[in-house]
Amino acid sequence: MTFTPTNYLPYDFANRRHIGPSVSEMAEMLKVVGAKDLHALIDDTLPAKIRQAEPLDFGKPLSEQELLRHMKVVAGKNKVLTSLIGQGYHGTVTPPAIQRNIFENPAWYTAYTPYQPEISQGRLEALLNFQTMVADLTGLEIANASLLDEATACAEAMTMAKRVAKTKVMGFFIDENCHPQNINVMKTRAAPLGIEVIVGNPDDMDAAEVFGAIFQFPGTYGHLRDFTPQIAALHEEKAIGIIAADPLSLTLLKEPGAMGADIAVGSTQRFGVPVGYGGPHAAYMATKASYARSMPGRIVGVSIDSHGNRAYRLSLQTREQHIRREKANSNVCTAQALLAVMAGFYAVFHGPEGLKAIAQRIHRKTARLAEGLKSAGFDVRPAAFFDTITVDVGPLQSAVMKSAVDEGINLRKVGTTQVGITLDERTRSSTIEAVWRAFGIEREDKDYTPHYQMPEKLIRTSDFLTHPVFHMNRAETEMMRYMRRLADRDLALDRAMIPLGSCTMKLNSAAEMMPVSWDEFALLHPYIPKDQAAGYYEMIDDLSAKLCDVTGYDAISMQPNSGAQGEYAGLLTIAAYHRANGQGHRNICLIPMSAHGTNPASAQMVGWKVVPIQSAANGDIDLDDFNAKVAEHKDNLAACMITYPSTHGVFEETVIDVCDTVHANGGQVYIDGANMNAMVGLSRPGDLGGDVSHLNLHKTFCIPHGGGGPGMGPIGVKEHLITHLPGDPTSGEGAVSAAPFGSPSLLPISWAYCLMMGGEGLTQATRVAILNANYIARRLEGSFEVLYKGPTGRIAHECIIDTRPFAESAHVTVDDIAKRLMDAGFHAPTMSWPVAGTLMIEPTESETKAELDRFCDAMIAIRGEIADIEEGRIDGTNNPLKNAPHTMEDLVKDWDRPYTREQGCFPRGAFRVDKYWPPVNRVDNVWGDRNLSCTCPPMDEYLEAAE
Amino acid sequence: MTFTPTNYLPYDFANRRHIGPSVSEMAEMLKVVGAKDLHALIDDTLPAKIRQAEPLDFGKPLSEQELLRHMKVVAGKNKVLTSLIGQGYHGTVTPPAIQRNIFENPAWYTAYTPYQPEISQGRLEALLNFQTMVADLTGLEIANASLLDEATACAEAMTMAKRVAKTKVMGFFIDENCHPQNINVMKTRAAPLGIEVIVGNPDDMDAAEVFGAIFQFPGTYGHLRDFTPQIAALHEEKAIGIIAADPLSLTLLKEPGAMGADIAVGSTQRFGVPVGYGGPHAAYMATKASYARSMPGRIVGVSIDSHGNRAYRLSLQTREQHIRREKANSNVCTAQALLAVMAGFYAVFHGPEGLKAIAQRIHRKTARLAEGLKSAGFDVRPAAFFDTITVDVGPLQSAVMKSAVDEGINLRKVGTTQVGITLDERTRSSTIEAVWRAFGIEREDKDYTPHYQMPEKLIRTSDFLTHPVFHMNRAETEMMRYMRRLADRDLALDRAMIPLGSCTMKLNSAAEMMPVSWDEFALLHPYIPKDQAAGYYEMIDDLSAKLCDVTGYDAISMQPNSGAQGEYAGLLTIAAYHRANGQGHRNICLIPMSAHGTNPASAQMVGWKVVPIQSAANGDIDLDDFNAKVAEHKDNLAACMITYPSTHGVFEETVIDVCDTVHANGGQVYIDGANMNAMVGLSRPGDLGGDVSHLNLHKTFCIPHGGGGPGMGPIGVKEHLITHLPGDPTSGEGAVSAAPFGSPSLLPISWAYCLMMGGEGLTQATRVAILNANYIARRLEGSFEVLYKGPTGRIAHECIIDTRPFAESAHVTVDDIAKRLMDAGFHAPTMSWPVAGTLMIEPTESETKAELDRFCDAMIAIRGEIADIEEGRIDGTNNPLKNAPHTMEDLVKDWDRPYTREQGCFPRGAFRVDKYWPPVNRVDNVWGDRNLSCTCPPMDEYLEAAE
Repeated sequence: MTFTPTNYLPYDFANRRHIGPSVSEMAEMLKVVGAKDLHALIDDTLPAKIRQAEPLDFGKPLSEQELLRHMKVVAGKNKVLTSLIGQGYHGTVTPPAIQRNIFENPAWYTAYTPYQPEISQGRLEALLNFQTMVADLTGLEIANASLLDEATACAEAMTMAKRVAKTKVMGFFIDENCHPQNINVMKTRAAPLGIEVIVGNPDDMDAAEVFGAIFQFPGTYGHLRDFTPQIAALHEEKAIGIIAADPLSLTLLKEPGAMGADIAVGSTQRFGVPVGYGGPHAAYMATKASYARSMPGRIVGVSIDSHGNRAYRLSLQTREQHIRREKANSNVCTAQALLAVMAGFYAVFHGPEGLKAIAQRIHRKTARLAEGLKSAGFDVRPAAFFDTITVDVGPLQSAVMKSAVDEGINLRKVGTTQVGITLDERTRSSTIEAVWRAFGIEREDKDYTPHYQMPEKLIRTSDFLTHPVFHMNRAETEMMRYMRRLADRDLALDRAMIPLGSCTMKLNSAAEMMPVSWDEFALLHPYIPKDQAAGYYEMIDDLSAKLCDVTGYDAISMQPNSGAQGEYAGLLTIAAYHRANGQGHRNICLIPMSAHGTNPASAQMVGWKVVPIQSAANGDIDLDDFNAKVAEHKDNLAACMITYPSTHGVFEETVIDVCDTVHANGGQVYIDGANMNAMVGLSRPGDLGGDVSHLNLHKTFCIPHGGGGPGMGPIGVKEHLITHLPGDPTSGEGAVSAAPFGSPSLLPISWAYCLMMGGEGLTQATRVAILNANYIARRLEGSFEVLYKGPTGRIAHECIIDTRPFAESAHVTVDDIAKRLMDAGFHAPTMSWPVAGTLMIEPTESETKAELDRFCDAMIAIRGEIADIEEGRIDGTNNPLKNAPHTMEDLVKDWDRPYTREQGCFPRGAFRVDKYWPPVNRVDNVWGDRNLSCTCPPMDEYLEAAE
Repeated sequence: MTFTPTNYLPYDFANRRHIGPSVSEMAEMLKVVGAKDLHALIDDTLPAKIRQAEPLDFGKPLSEQELLRHMKVVAGKNKVLTSLIGQGYHGTVTPPAIQRNIFENPAWYTAYTPYQPEISQGRLEALLNFQTMVADLTGLEIANASLLDEATACAEAMTMAKRVAKTKVMGFFIDENCHPQNINVMKTRAAPLGIEVIVGNPDDMDAAEVFGAIFQFPGTYGHLRDFTPQIAALHEEKAIGIIAADPLSLTLLKEPGAMGADIAVGSTQRFGVPVGYGGPHAAYMATKASYARSMPGRIVGVSIDSHGNRAYRLSLQTREQHIRREKANSNVCTAQALLAVMAGFYAVFHGPEGLKAIAQRIHRKTARLAEGLKSAGFDVRPAAFFDTITVDVGPLQSAVMKSAVDEGINLRKVGTTQVGITLDERTRSSTIEAVWRAFGIEREDKDYTPHYQMPEKLIRTSDFLTHPVFHMNRAETEMMRYMRRLADRDLALDRAMIPLGSCTMKLNSAAEMMPVSWDEFALLHPYIPKDQAAGYYEMIDDLSAKLCDVTGYDAISMQPNSGAQGEYAGLLTIAAYHRANGQGHRNICLIPMSAHGTNPASAQMVGWKVVPIQSAANGDIDLDDFNAKVAEHKDNLAACMITYPSTHGVFEETVIDVCDTVHANGGQVYIDGANMNAMVGLSRPGDLGGDVSHLNLHKTFCIPHGGGGPGMGPIGVKEHLITHLPGDPTSGEGAVSAAPFGSPSLLPISWAYCLMMGGEGLTQATRVAILNANYIARRLEGSFEVLYKGPTGRIAHECIIDTRPFAESAHVTVDDIAKRLMDAGFHAPTMSWPVAGTLMIEPTESETKAELDRFCDAMIAIRGEIADIEEGRIDGTNNPLKNAPHTMEDLVKDWDRPYTREQGCFPRGAFRVDKYWPPVNRVDNVWGDRNLSCTCPPMDEYLEAAE
């Protein structure tokens, strides 16, 4: 019989989805790098003693269909009740046009942080809309492009107040009506910094005692109060007034700016972002213009390009990865870009009238609800409210709450005798009637307009969202095209490799993304009873177990919702461990010079002193310096933070000795997980001697970067640290995020990745990531010098190439090369980090050989252009590198350059018909920082753009 | 109290979604058109006597959230069992990357048919992939870009065979093992054409009796048989051999071409397109190169552009709307482009090895299933099979089928003593075990490799899918980027207005699209018991009732799955009515000269003679000619087909008289529903005198065009015609489509539109469509002559502008203007139809004033360029019009034209940074038809393109 059964597995049953190169391409590439096979390459690259003993084994990997079926079963274990718990989390309606065209569109969710502004103008405009919305709603002058969640935003506001207040006292006042999780997280943050927190009634505040105070508006139990007198009193004492405000309420009620607030924070979750069992969603911060330079987080600003045209960019960027270690304002790094974009579009879609109408509808419903309760004899507080009321039910509290659950509704437990109820955009008459029934009231909710229950003096009188972008026609066609135009201006993973060293821009597969949109994951409130989240618990338990297997740790905390947050949480855990062992005095943290900038910032946040360790010439830790520093500080050594493989892209053999030395001197080892994509399945930080690591699930485990967030930075710890992990935000103290599991609605992505890859698949991904990096390094040899290789000449999953020689030889900077790559349709590699004047390239396993070659061709062609300058063949100042990136406008205008349009716009590597055009020329960074402007430019410029 | 309650409704509760202009824009526009208000405009436009008496009332319109909630409840009434019924419909896995990036992506689904090739290169390439796939799998030389479903494809093959066979006999042989619905639809098609159908065993076929024969492979009950001898016998008699083949089976089994077949047809549904209770999905047709010009449907071909570069286009286009009325091959017009694109990508994603592996897995499962049944003593047939077996269960048939349903499985009822089982890509071991249990067998399905049950002689020996596009890396990153690149080459509604007269390119809103992806709508087999489709029935009943309200008819048949199919079904209904009344001799069909080309083609398909009616100078029906023709043919008058408002874009006052006259002379009136978007809520064809109309749900009722299909063309009829509507495809005769409700999985879109708009919203959409059209007409006045207005100077929802004068004055053709509009970022209006040398513009209600102005500005600027030619200011042959569209390549190359790059590439209306670039210059139609090539070009050209 001629019939031959095939051994080929369809992609859905093989691990081809995530692995870029085909089998035959890998063979070719191995030849180029000079390795017999993939295993030989890995043997060359990873020192034997750091290899893990057993292969990763998660059982049989699932196909996409098996995964989705399994995920549906697990999701089904979550009970989707209507949660009226409030406390900063609200039901909301995501407009389907936004869900489809933003949230589920790879052009938006696969984008990187907009550090390269020329290829990020679309999301920069979207984030500028967000900032304008926040500034307008809060009545303050400037806003940032989002923070992680409201509780961390409160903590950031507190530490910012400390920085800007012109008073030396260490007290900080917290309104007792703040959401409990906000109070919790602020307390956690305050303790190591020596800030003395006073929680109380604003009437009792002594402004002289504090450098700042925070008030919640509306209060967590629904109260509306004007904080103008308190803030005036604070200002008398040169202290700072902060208001944590619900932005939707501000469409109707007096805005923080009008109360004199210096800073406003809050959550924009209810602007169309599903609750997601706690996250992700975008918190906001707004402040006065004079405090701009002290504000944490990213700020989108308006600048000009080299032709003087308007261009957006991240302002004051130097504060971030290039953070000044010793003077770190904050370790904030990841924002919630994708969610801020959604919230901004929600405001664009609804406009001020729409938002106001939504707020009024919610208020009317709350008033009707309250009236029904009152007329049945219940004691309802407060008298004036926006969307939240609290009902005294005496000993019947648990009976009423249970009865509500039976009606499909979660109420909030307040103290032991009250229940809280917060309505939202999703509340229907049937919901109100169900609440009444839970209170034993049979009543029909008629849609009449009740008397408004808001105090006259607190009604907002100022305009907001006056910019034309918030006055589109509410026609979906117009919205859809606006979203498309902005998306098209950007370069994301759906068009090209983003070879960012240390940032691991890999495939975010469609199958992994799908469950995130499911109601069973999207609609859960973070503070519901555990039995309603059984699916989440099953997923979190299994994913945690898998991550323990991957890392060699004994437990995982999912609470940190960014990498930097993970570092901070990890160091807090170590500090708590030292305190518990009577070693609370240990406060020295050793950090290699090459570490991520967030490392020292995080160490400072836990009150430690950073002692830097020098690098050796080969990029490794300088062991002499390390040993000297350990000896010097051994009595106070708290921890050593290292990155593995090192930020120089090399697997250091000495890592185990370093860890042993730290332990022998009473310290703990923090291994930064930024480079886990080079380790999964091959080596485990826990085995090397790490006590804690954070994992960037948005790097190694397929959560998309979202154009600058969301992130997830869970930490793994060894057994002895488990009891010192972050506390529950809803009870007790010691929380680092507002929600118990950070941003849990992202976890299906990482879980799906693990389940579909299986242990061998994950390991293969690591091997191919290393192969791809070594292939690039080898192809670029002769054109560029690759810094820092292992003893066998191999690199890990990324490589650093040196561009410093060209500064002298051709006056070409690393910036010129980065911008020139845009002409070829690439996002630049990481620039000048960890070594100034270099490019760090990380291809990941997801890229095919063809794409790697396209990139290498582009790089080699750039080297050729540099040689042309060096050798005088082309002009030193008017050349394709200096004029990069080239725009369509350049092409259409008169061309007075000593090279052709073809040479300028179509360098090697560029697609022809599929050419990506940067919408602006090179952006002027200095101009933007000098002329800081962080809200939408005036109308006339928009009208212009519309033509 | 200063608080002012707002009356503003958030967009989700107002009908803003679909209405482009804002309230204030409408006021401005009404000033321009010179109407007091919208109602006054409508009173001017629609003659009072054709207005409907009562406003449309569907109760309170639903918000998006209410709609989705309601839809979920209704969807929940459909029971999603595993259907192993087969019969041409199979479970399949849509790769999530394709679902997200094609099926749910407006860049793909909002595109129009690629008549304008320069702005359609992306989907043309995707369709060329589909054609290559079909040609390769069937072993024939050329394929078309899809047909409506397998049954209609069989009917098309039959009539094509009639055209090409060099024999005069009228017999047509149908293999009794063809799927019953195929036989049914072919019989329907054969009867009016005088074709004598013979259904029987191929062994008994007398080739001399027939002009062609069709065989099913594999047979409907699973048989595999080599039809080589039968086809050889047919060829002896100069007759045509047709094979209806499952394309997945052809990855393993002998292809139709190798059996000598002249034509192959089938369904590509199982290539990743959900069953959807019957559709939509793409049927295919392939044939020998020599028959290319006789093949119905659209064929994508390879041509060159004006610079000699490769460019794709629709070949042999003249057969379609420009169909030669008297020699129509077929009335086929709408294809299933979106679904063909999906099927093509499915093949690209899996490649030949992947498809083969999927087929083998299915076969192995079928073999294991059969073995289990056999070893339990069941009589399983046939001995050799691919995926389908038939089991003799004697009197236990209904018991086994019921027992299977209890296990969650639908089997096929075959005769009275057998059940059929067909496995597919979704079949799991648990499914096989459940089937066994339904037969009373307790057995475990172990995943071993059984003996293959396919006859050695029928094993395929030839290669297929050898083109590089089918040999990508199976890495999702690469696939995602390929899909994005193709999408970006095209201009669809998500970027710009598509002002196509008579095609109604309106918003397809995200909320309307979402339910189509739900399992409850997507996974149902069309032949399941009715009680499993209760949700579908509820939806179809309610939508039918609403469409009856809209049209004034008494019943709706959802069976026709395109507009042309609707016409044909409507005329069949009329013919059946005449026969039932003893008037079967009536065979004259009056059709105005201005009618859609499909009208006469459809009339011919029911065996009627077409008698054309002249148009008067104003575009109306020439009443004198009409009356004369009626008088001449009154004894044989079957029907009169009219379009309302007329294809000239005017509401004719005389329509009621025309209908009365037809009725008085024994005829029936068919009112073509192509222009219903000008009538909904204002006027009803049923009230005007229509007996039948079809509704293009993909025009008026928001089903997206999908780049050239899917469509839905249900017909409404008056009471007296109800009993003559198309029959059920699964029982009896008289079906026009394979599935009882055509393409029912699209119906949630139209239903959602009706439910969210409500009666008043739909009516307002009509009014605004008319306003938008009148606004354009007024703005273009002075620049262009608007042909055909009503007596008050108004037009309906579209207008025709005359470009013929420019042919003489400036040698500028309608083509030049259409291509020049591309430079401004627009799809051209309908060209040269219904009047040669004109453009017909239909903006729809979805466009904002800003977009209408952008279009008008572009048109007026074009008129300026024409004037420049007329007055000698620019060259007559080397000018922006003649050189349009301009590409990026033009810009980058040396520019030797007498106008600037700026003038060439950025005419008024064009966006700047968001500029859309046609990927090719003007496509050479003649070259393409002369050098017909309908499969992917060879590898070297691809390699080139990849660079």
